[in-house]
Amino acid sequence: MVELDQAVKAREPLAARLFEQLREGTHDGVGITRASYGEGEQFAHTLLGERAGSLGLEVAHDAVGNTFMTLPGADREAPPMVIGSHLDSVAQGGNFDGAAGVIAGLVAALALRDAGVVPARDIRVMGIRAEEGEWFGVAYIGSRSALGTLPEGALERARRVDTGLALHAHMAQAGCDPNAIRAGQVSLPPARLHGFIEVHIEQGPVLEEASIPVGLVTGIRGNSRLPGAHCTGEYSHCGGVPRTHRRDAVVAVAELVARLDDIWTECEAADQDFAFTVGKLFTDAKYHAMSKIAGAVDFTLDMRSLDGEFLQEMEARLAGLADDIASRRGVNFELGEFTHAEPGVLAARMRKELREGIDALGIRAMDLASGASHDAAAFAAAGVPSAMLFIRNANGSHNPHEAMALGDFSEATRVLAWWLAHRL
Amino acid sequence: MVELDQAVKAREPLAARLFEQLREGTHDGVGITRASYGEGEQFAHTLLGERAGSLGLEVAHDAVGNTFMTLPGADREAPPMVIGSHLDSVAQGGNFDGAAGVIAGLVAALALRDAGVVPARDIRVMGIRAEEGEWFGVAYIGSRSALGTLPEGALERARRVDTGLALHAHMAQAGCDPNAIRAGQVSLPPARLHGFIEVHIEQGPVLEEASIPVGLVTGIRGNSRLPGAHCTGEYSHCGGVPRTHRRDAVVAVAELVARLDDIWTECEAADQDFAFTVGKLFTDAKYHAMSKIAGAVDFTLDMRSLDGEFLQEMEARLAGLADDIASRRGVNFELGEFTHAEPGVLAARMRKELREGIDALGIRAMDLASGASHDAAAFAAAGVPSAMLFIRNANGSHNPHEAMALGDFSEATRVLAWWLAHRL
Repeated sequence: MVELDQAVKAREPLAARLFEQLREGTHDGVGITRASYGEGEQFAHTLLGERAGSLGLEVAHDAVGNTFMTLPGADREAPPMVIGSHLDSVAQGGNFDGAAGVIAGLVAALALRDAGVVPARDIRVMGIRAEEGEWFGVAYIGSRSALGTLPEGALERARRVDTGLALHAHMAQAGCDPNAIRAGQVSLPPARLHGFIEVHIEQGPVLEEASIPVGLVTGIRGNSRLPGAHCTGEYSHCGGVPRTHRRDAVVAVAELVARLDDIWTECEAADQDFAFTVGKLFTDAKYHAMSKIAGAVDFTLDMRSLDGEFLQEMEARLAGLADDIASRRGVNFELGEFTHAEPGVLAARMRKELREGIDALGIRAMDLASGASHDAAAFAAAGVPSAMLFIRNANGSHNPHEAMALGDFSEATRVLAWWLAHRL
Repeated sequence: MVELDQAVKAREPLAARLFEQLREGTHDGVGITRASYGEGEQFAHTLLGERAGSLGLEVAHDAVGNTFMTLPGADREAPPMVIGSHLDSVAQGGNFDGAAGVIAGLVAALALRDAGVVPARDIRVMGIRAEEGEWFGVAYIGSRSALGTLPEGALERARRVDTGLALHAHMAQAGCDPNAIRAGQVSLPPARLHGFIEVHIEQGPVLEEASIPVGLVTGIRGNSRLPGAHCTGEYSHCGGVPRTHRRDAVVAVAELVARLDDIWTECEAADQDFAFTVGKLFTDAKYHAMSKIAGAVDFTLDMRSLDGEFLQEMEARLAGLADDIASRRGVNFELGEFTHAEPGVLAARMRKELREGIDALGIRAMDLASGASHDAAAFAAAGVPSAMLFIRNANGSHNPHEAMALGDFSEATRVLAWWLAHRL
C-alpha cells in the first residue's frame, strides 16, 4: 500500500502547520496552557474543527464540546470507529500531549481519502475535552461524558482549581449544554462503537532511550490513591524522651515508604507491574521544630499497576503495614478513603493487528505499558475495544520541554492509517 | 543531720509561695511565658532577687543580668560554689523548667543558714538568663556570658524570633550592659569556681514511670545538628517514568531516616548512647502533587549522644549513607554544615558524693542521662566540675502540663543541702 503510505507522508506539512498554530495560539509565555473548558482548549477545538471542515470532513460537536471530524464510511449506519485524544493541557505544559493524537487521526483520515480508500464504516476523529485531572480533580470528563460514564454529581461538585467555578458553569461558559448531560444525553453510546484508537506521546523515556520511534501499548495502569493520609504521633522533646516512649510520626511514615519500596523490589523480581509515589509529605509548619519529635505528618500515596486485583491486594496490604507500624511505634494512621481508577485493559486483537501493520510497514516499534492515564482507559472501561500507540518523546510531559520529532509522529500515523485501511 | 533536713522541710512553704508567685506573674493565659530578656524573665529575676535579699542573702547582678544570691562562706576569697538554673521559659511553657533549680538553690542555702552551717566558701545561688535556645537560636546565653564562652558575634547576630531585635538590644532594654561583655568582662571566671550543681525537672518520663523522685544525672548529651538539609531529585510523572529513571527525593530521605533508625537499634544492642530526630521534613508546597515524583525534600536532623566521639563518627557515617543513597537513587543531598554542642561530662567525684548523700538520707534515686541540654553543660564545657540532679516530673516539659510534686522538689533539695553541708 505504497500510495496510502505516501499520502500520510504528504500530509506531514499540514501536521507541522497545525502544531505550529496550536503553539502560537496557546503559548503562555513559558509553555502551553489549554485549561479544560478554558480559552486555550477552545482555541484548539476551533482551529482543528475549522481546518477539518475546510478539508472536507464532517464536523460536529456534542453537548460537552467534544469535536468530531468524520470521514464517512461505506455503511453510514455501521458502528463508527473513533480515533482521538484530548486537546486540553496542564498549565505550562507541552504542545504535543494530547494534540498529537487528534492530529494523527486527522492526517490518517485524510490520507485514506487521498489514497482513495473508502472505509467500511465512519471514522470519527475526536478532539476530546477535559482529560487532564489537574483542572477539575476529575479525569476523562470529555470522554466519559460522551460515553455516559461520568460519575454522578461531577458537574456540580468538580470545581476548576484556578477559578473555583463548577464544571457545569465552565461548560456553559464554553457554549456547551450541561443540562443535556444531566438529561442522560450520550454522544458515543459504547455498545454502538466499533472501537477506539488513541495515539499519544510517551510520557516517559523508554522509547527515547531504546531509540525506537513507536510504542505499542500493552495496557494502561490503574491507580489506587490516598489524597490526604495522616499520621499522628506526639510532639515531645528530642532529647528527653527515651526511645520506647517516642511516638515519632516522621520515623513511622519513613518506614511505611521504605517498606513500600521493598515491596516494589519484590514485585520486580516477580514480574508484577507496580509503582508507588509519595508526592507530598510534610510535617506541620506550625508546630514542627528541629528539636521536637514530630507529632504529625501529612502525605499522599499513588499506587499504580496494570493489574487491578493486585492494586486491591495492595490496598489491604498497606492498611496492614500501617497497623503494624502504628502498634510498634505508638502512632496512629488515618489513611482516608482510597480513590480508584481501574486499569485500562486494551483489546488483544487490535494490538495484534497493529503489530501486523508495524511489521508490514517495517517500522521499529516495541511493546510497553502506559504508566500514565489516558482517555483510552475510559473507552476500555466502558467496554469499547481500545488500543493505543505511543510516539517517542524526550524530556517527559506536562512541561514545556516535550520533544516529539515530526518524523516519529508520521511513523505512528502510518501504522494507524494502515490499520484503518486493512483491519477496520 | 536531722536539723538540716528539717530546715529544708521547713522552707517548703517558701518554695510553694515562690512557685505560686512565679506562676501568677508570668501566666500567659495558656501556660507560662518568660522570654529570654523579656518581661516574664525579668519578673522572675526581680521576684527571687528581692525575696533573697529580704531573707538576708547578698544579692548582685552581672552585666548580662544573671542574678546572684549569695550565702557567705567562712573564706570569702575561696573560689565560690555556684548552684543554679535558668529563669526563662519557652513560650506557653511550664512553671518548673528552670525555676525549680533556682528555688532549690535558695532553699538549700537558707536551710544551711537556718541549721547554723557556715559553708567553707561562698555559695552563690544563680538565676541564669536566657537558657532556652528557642528565643535567640543560641543556647546558654546567660551562663556562657558569665563564663566568657559565648560565641564571638552572638550579641549582634542572634535575634529574638518574636521581635527580630538583636540580643545586645534586648540586653540593653533589660537594663544590662552588653558593652561590658564586648569588653571581655566575665562574672564567673571558670578557673576561679569551685563547682556547679544544677537541679532541674526531668523532661522525660523515666522517673515518673519508675516511681522514683530523684535522678542523679550521669551526663548531658551533646548534639550534632543539620538545621537545613536538602535532597534534590527530579519532578516527573508518577506513572510514566520507569523505576530505574526515577529520582524520588521522598524515597531517598525516607531511606535515610529508616537507616538511621536501624543504626539506633544497633546502638541499643551495643549499649551505645544515641538518639536522632528528624523534626522537620517536607516536600515543596509550591511544586509537589499527588501524581508527581517529588523533586525536593527539606529536612532537619538532630543526633544526640553522651559520647562526643561517637557523634563525630555519626557525622561521617551520615555523609557516607547520604552518598550511598544518592548514587543508588539518582538524587543529590546537600546536608549543609553540622552545628555542634559538646556533651556535658559531669564530675565523677561530685556524682559519687551526691550518691553518698542520697544513701545517707535514704532517698530513692536512680542514675540517668540527660537527653536535653542544660546550663550545666556550659559549665562543664568551661572546665568547671559540675553535677545535676533531676526531679520527677509528669507530662514532659516545654508545655503547660509539667507536673512536679513539691515533695519531690524537697527530696532533691535535701540531697543538695546535704552535699553543701558535707562535701563542699
